[in-house]
Amino acid sequence: MLRPLGDRIVIELIEAEEKTASGIVLPDSAKEKPQEGKVVAVGTGRVLENGTRVELDVNEGDRIIFSKYSGTEVKYENTEYLILRESDVLAVIG
Amino acid sequence: MLRPLGDRIVIELIEAEEKTASGIVLPDSAKEKPQEGKVVAVGTGRVLENGTRVELDVNEGDRIIFSKYSGTEVKYENTEYLILRESDVLAVIG
Amino acid sequence: MLRPLGDRIVIELIEAEEKTASGIVLPDSAKEKPQEGKVVAVGTGRVLENGTRVELDVNEGDRIIFSKYSGTEVKYENTEYLILRESDVLAVIG
Amino acid sequence: MLRPLGDRIVIELIEAEEKTASGIVLPDSAKEKPQEGKVVAVGTGRVLENGTRVELDVNEGDRIIFSKYSGTEVKYENTEYLILRESDVLAVIG
Amino acid sequence: MLRPLGDRIVIELIEAEEKTASGIVLPDSAKEKPQEGKVVAVGTGRVLENGTRVELDVNEGDRIIFSKYSGTEVKYENTEYLILRESDVLAVIG
Amino acid sequence: MLRPLGDRIVIELIEAEEKTASGIVLPDSAKEKPQEGKVVAVGTGRVLENGTRVELDVNEGDRIIFSKYSGTEVKYENTEYLILRESDVLAVIG
Amino acid sequence: MLRPLGDRIVIELIEAEEKTASGIVLPDSAKEKPQEGKVVAVGTGRVLENGTRVELDVNEGDRIIFSKYSGTEVKYENTEYLILRESDVLAVIG
Repeated sequence: MLRPLGDRIVIELIEAEEKTASGIVLPDSAKEKPQEGKVVAVGTGRVLENGTRVELDVNEGDRIIFSKYSGTEVKYENTEYLILRESDVLAVIG
Repeated sequence: MLRPLGDRIVIELIEAEEKTASGIVLPDSAKEKPQEGKVVAVGTGRVLENGTRVELDVNEGDRIIFSKYSGTEVKYENTEYLILRESDVLAVIG
Repeated sequence: MLRPLGDRIVIELIEAEEKTASGIVLPDSAKEKPQEGKVVAVGTGRVLENGTRVELDVNEGDRIIFSKYSGTEVKYENTEYLILRESDVLAVIG
Repeated sequence: MLRPLGDRIVIELIEAEEKTASGIVLPDSAKEKPQEGKVVAVGTGRVLENGTRVELDVNEGDRIIFSKYSGTEVKYENTEYLILRESDVLAVIG
Repeated sequence: MLRPLGDRIVIELIEAEEKTASGIVLPDSAKEKPQEGKVVAVGTGRVLENGTRVELDVNEGDRIIFSKYSGTEVKYENTEYLILRESDVLAVIG
Repeated sequence: MLRPLGDRIVIELIEAEEKTASGIVLPDSAKEKPQEGKVVAVGTGRVLENGTRVELDVNEGDRIIFSKYSGTEVKYENTEYLILRESDVLAVIG
Repeated sequence: MLRPLGDRIVIELIEAEEKTASGIVLPDSAKEKPQEGKVVAVGTGRVLENGTRVELDVNEGDRIIFSKYSGTEVKYENTEYLILRESDVLAVIG
């Protein structure tokens, strides 16, 4: 299990459709970088200057849209994850 | 539904007129980037260092003017949206 | 009507004289960018980290001098406005 | 009258001597940029994050030395002024 | 012993496998920079503006994933360590 | 007299020896920029966000070492001074 | 004596071994920049926004490891020192 720190979250990417409208399967480099993910773990939140902690606004299981190219890819037990800061999350879907 | 986080809002663009004064229909690249949108969802506001949350000054349904080139375009259920921070909103129209 | 947010203001430009000392009318590109404007709307002020709001120091109707090249031009109902932050206002005239 | 905002001040420049040691009158471009001015108006001070205002340390009539190239030149009723932030003031003379 | 200051931690790197899938031993330059480490010492935490100290979220003995290229390599008693800030730690494993 | 503002101080430079070990007098360009000065005036200190003022840690008469190339040179009544911020002072001598 | 200000410390460098494993004495340019020092003086600490001072975590006599290329070299009474900020100290040894 990956336990993210502070205001970080761990997500699994939700891949965009791999075929074009005309049904052609795209090579990896021609696909748009996915911007959608499913939250698999959330941190305990950042600490304010008055010492209290702000809980995250996203929860485990949420589907989210995030800023392209943000976060860090990590591989853990043969699965690829992306670790983001909550501020990289644009919106929750649902 | 898209639920924006913190001080973010989701808007739909309001396209500028697609004809010039002389009635010529412009190709997409020749049109000015629209700066006007309609708010479809607002976040719960940013958290101050004292732990309180500041509600947004814009509301669902508001027509707004925003800074050119700000925000992130996202496509959700075949509709294009723009996700902005409230600080990218210049003024509310009305 | 345009309602600016936070510490923003909406101004109308006050054009500089369009003739040189010798009476020659200048083409637009040769004129100095105006630095003077009349305030037509003010925001409700920025929110401090303790949660209180700071009212603006400029009021509707004020004539102001502002930093060159600051702000964003917007067109609304066929009138050109400039939306500035209060911090771009150098001084009030009068 | 010019009323500067916040921590800004309005000054009139005090020109450096326009002759060299050998008595030659210098053309404008060869003169050193003056760094000395007389304060003609001061703002009401900046607002701290706790909501109180900090009065300026310089007063109308003070002669000051300021950082070269700081501030914005404005012309008002045929007089040239410089609008500075208090933080651009290095020292008060006298 | 190394005692890190503030929000710093000392880690030992956990090397990635040195063979490729086909069993070929890789030269150093061809290996991916490891992103995994074991915490051997933690600082006492950073001091907030209200004077209190925030204890670290990672503990001695934790296995962590950290941002590539972050931290400073130091050699102490013939062992190589990496000194990171807690903010460079992406997640704790386990 | 020069009265520096806030956390600024006015110093007179203490020139490094102008001869090399072998007694050769160096031209100006070959000398090291001096890093030592004598404090001739200090400001009243910077204002914290809670409104209180922090008195300076250096006093009139102190000999100090400061960061190379920091500060602004000013000439006043035919004497050259350097105006620094207290944060440019590395250490007090003595 | 050098009295460092605020969160600064004065250290003496502890030179790395000047011979290679094979006993060859290295010229200065081929040696690694030392990262180890002994603290000879510490400042009184930085002032927080609430006006209190944070004492340093390092003490006179401590042996420390610091970030390469940080700090400022000063020569005082024919000894070379390095003046660092506490934040440049990575760890205390011992």
